[in-house]
Amino acid sequence: MFVRLASAIALLASFPAIAVQDDLISEREADTARQLMEMGLASDTGYEIVRSLTTEVGPRLGGSQQEARARDWAVQMFTELGFSNVRVEPFEMPFWNRGPISAAIITPFPQPMLASALGGSAATPQGGLNAEIVFFDSFDALRDFDGSLEGRMAYVNDRMVRAMTGAGYGPANDKRRFAWLEAEARGAAGVMIRSVGTDSHRFPHTGMMSTPRADTVASGTHSQAVIDYLESEHPDFTERRVWSSIPAVALSAPDADQIERIHEAGETVRVSLSVVAGWRGNRQSGNVVAEIPGRERPEEVVLIGAHLDSWDEATGAVDDGAGVGIVTAAAHLIDQLPRAPRRTIRVVLFGAEEVGLLGAFAYASDNEADVPNIVMASESDFGAGRVWSLTSGTGEEGTRFMDEAQRIISPLGIIRGSRASRGGGPDIIPLAARGVPVFRLTQDGTDYFDLHHTPDDTFDKIDPEALAQNVAAWAAITWLIAETDVEFRTVTDDSE
Amino acid sequence: MFVRLASAIALLASFPAIAVQDDLISEREADTARQLMEMGLASDTGYEIVRSLTTEVGPRLGGSQQEARARDWAVQMFTELGFSNVRVEPFEMPFWNRGPISAAIITPFPQPMLASALGGSAATPQGGLNAEIVFFDSFDALRDFDGSLEGRMAYVNDRMVRAMTGAGYGPANDKRRFAWLEAEARGAAGVMIRSVGTDSHRFPHTGMMSTPRADTVASGTHSQAVIDYLESEHPDFTERRVWSSIPAVALSAPDADQIERIHEAGETVRVSLSVVAGWRGNRQSGNVVAEIPGRERPEEVVLIGAHLDSWDEATGAVDDGAGVGIVTAAAHLIDQLPRAPRRTIRVVLFGAEEVGLLGAFAYASDNEADVPNIVMASESDFGAGRVWSLTSGTGEEGTRFMDEAQRIISPLGIIRGSRASRGGGPDIIPLAARGVPVFRLTQDGTDYFDLHHTPDDTFDKIDPEALAQNVAAWAAITWLIAETDVEFRTVTDDSE
Repeated sequence: MFVRLASAIALLASFPAIAVQDDLISEREADTARQLMEMGLASDTGYEIVRSLTTEVGPRLGGSQQEARARDWAVQMFTELGFSNVRVEPFEMPFWNRGPISAAIITPFPQPMLASALGGSAATPQGGLNAEIVFFDSFDALRDFDGSLEGRMAYVNDRMVRAMTGAGYGPANDKRRFAWLEAEARGAAGVMIRSVGTDSHRFPHTGMMSTPRADTVASGTHSQAVIDYLESEHPDFTERRVWSSIPAVALSAPDADQIERIHEAGETVRVSLSVVAGWRGNRQSGNVVAEIPGRERPEEVVLIGAHLDSWDEATGAVDDGAGVGIVTAAAHLIDQLPRAPRRTIRVVLFGAEEVGLLGAFAYASDNEADVPNIVMASESDFGAGRVWSLTSGTGEEGTRFMDEAQRIISPLGIIRGSRASRGGGPDIIPLAARGVPVFRLTQDGTDYFDLHHTPDDTFDKIDPEALAQNVAAWAAITWLIAETDVEFRTVTDDSE
Repeated sequence: MFVRLASAIALLASFPAIAVQDDLISEREADTARQLMEMGLASDTGYEIVRSLTTEVGPRLGGSQQEARARDWAVQMFTELGFSNVRVEPFEMPFWNRGPISAAIITPFPQPMLASALGGSAATPQGGLNAEIVFFDSFDALRDFDGSLEGRMAYVNDRMVRAMTGAGYGPANDKRRFAWLEAEARGAAGVMIRSVGTDSHRFPHTGMMSTPRADTVASGTHSQAVIDYLESEHPDFTERRVWSSIPAVALSAPDADQIERIHEAGETVRVSLSVVAGWRGNRQSGNVVAEIPGRERPEEVVLIGAHLDSWDEATGAVDDGAGVGIVTAAAHLIDQLPRAPRRTIRVVLFGAEEVGLLGAFAYASDNEADVPNIVMASESDFGAGRVWSLTSGTGEEGTRFMDEAQRIISPLGIIRGSRASRGGGPDIIPLAARGVPVFRLTQDGTDYFDLHHTPDDTFDKIDPEALAQNVAAWAAITWLIAETDVEFRTVTDDSE
């Protein structure tokens, strides 16, 4: 605590040196933003929220009883913090969960492996299965494979590239999303992938699989074998729920290394696999919402969010307990000011993000009429690392405003990123698609994918100083956007 | 490879600058030692041995079928490398193993925990157990507890201190060794401990429990409650096999943090626990031995060892695949020289170390008549970190010899440590107790207890350059001791 306060004071000394250079933000408004930054750096509210959520709720898979407990927790927390209009917006969703798993190399060198079923995976047949591995260096190699996998286990080996921006995730994730489909179309008994992650610990990384859609078919994501399979067997392929009939699992990096080494030695690898997993019918989930009503334009809404659910194997500290703590604490700081900002600030804790952005889609469609009132939206969902860049995607005046806002928060170590970004965070995608302008306080994600979707995503991984820097930046930016009357939408945006 | 050769060459340039300062090692002998250091730094034999053992055998619990496979692997490896007198020296041992485990917090905040049964743990009753936790800050607090634990779960929370020398291990390990006994004597349903380790990952650290012995009773390790319990219920307490009737498990650090946080919030924690574990009768184990016969004094033996077994939950790369690779590669380098050293070099890969130094005790008692022929002994069993110190415990001439030997290997970054050390490594304990002089090439163990006894102890954790530095040091020191006719024993040593 002493250290945090000391560094806050050291940093604050430099805040006034950055003068406002445009007329879109007044010196007085800038002062309030700086005051919020001071408060954010000195506050442990965000950290305490993460502690509370990860300890008192723990894992909270979308659609589970634990996620329902998380909603109760969120309603109580918002209420205790004094927010207005606290509510749950419920929705129905298909529920997938898992039971025990065991995986092993059977020949040539028998030994157990650590694996995790991917979201949407089918179970193995009773008694498990035993199959020879067909080794693919990459998802592309599997997609280009010109043969049958009948009765065999497809294994996909490519590694994820570590990057501050998380840019390695998309390319590495093709295999998590679609390897099941390439394998199933070729008659495989199952599919194993090297975990999508950047660590070398003995933790598999779980994560949801995807269904093919018109756009992925059109973009060449799938092979001709898959397209033929879809046409003959699954003409209803637009169903969003993964319909795999084969088990799909991720191996920890060291276990993937074993398979790679044995394969490279010229040996054929046989594995056993037993997975309990499947769809369990429909369940209830919900988004939890709280507000600070605007003092002059209450119908105009600045939406800041995070997701409340987590994967089931950890307590979801960096994904996304951190986001819950950051946006809630930022709004709470604003709520401590003598008067509310002009526009309404709405905090949305989305449900069931991990299992397909289900809360985000429900929110956008259930609040269709209100979406035009959302002035700007953003989500914190990239861990607990420091913010280093502010991106936005708005009209021209909005861009100038965000340039100026960035100058105010620059003493926090934040540069100006893209002025033409469509990314506001995963749960903002359905809103952005409906024309809502977005911003993002981009975090340093260098280490994020060491923990992402593993059993190791726990509270001890949160750096309280980095979290406080996030809260400071979010409080300042959110307040500035809520206080101004700048219009962020642009009539020339082709998405509108 | 290129990097390794480059650094070897850079280092070699400095070797000749260290002149021999005494008459116990000739300049020509020093040159051969330096040549071995060059060869060691440039060789990947040690690394390839670890790769082979961890990949082709994998986990190898003492007494298991996998450990038998490891002996076959070792015999084949020694034979292929051209060693002489390759043999297995078998022994019988009591065998403990584990099945599935599940642990959870039941109230107030239900969530699963990751746990590992401690070696020697009993199983839970059919259907598992459900008990209230009694929280102890430390093993001492449990030992001093003046009450009953009837039907409850003792939980011991103290943390291990990180230290280059591993000095934090002993104090932290009291709870792993003896918490079961303090709990059982007070009627507890079971015992949970915070893992003995220095990491904060979601891996429990397993490890063997201990039995009380006359010396631990005399030294005050046990409470009066335990002493009373032993007298009334277990007068046969000198039995070496842990006879616990209650389950004993280690929790991962993040799970221990959860219990600590909930306890500190003033809540009572109830947990569920289901453990399959137990003693399975006697099994066969064995020590695997190979030699380079001495050219002049073949009956005099320099014994260098490592242990072949590992815990069952990982492939035992740092514990002790690294040691196997280091001492074997060092001896193999010596075997590449034009002529053998004067004395015999014997490599011993001990069986069943983790479960109570069983191979070490069997070796010493089965070779009782040969023990006086062992000139000096040492084991590599502290991971794969760099050697930074040479310690020894010998007579006066031996000490001067080791001083001189250290000057020769000092360019590897190795200082002179204790000259009165009784430590040659865990499996050397029974030999040292019989008067065999010891040395040790002390490794940097700062990170060793991050991995020790966890599922994360895998090949990817080995730094090939650090391993090669170990091989270089071991080759030089082992050869110097085997080539000299210095007598390392001392007639004034009170252990003789």
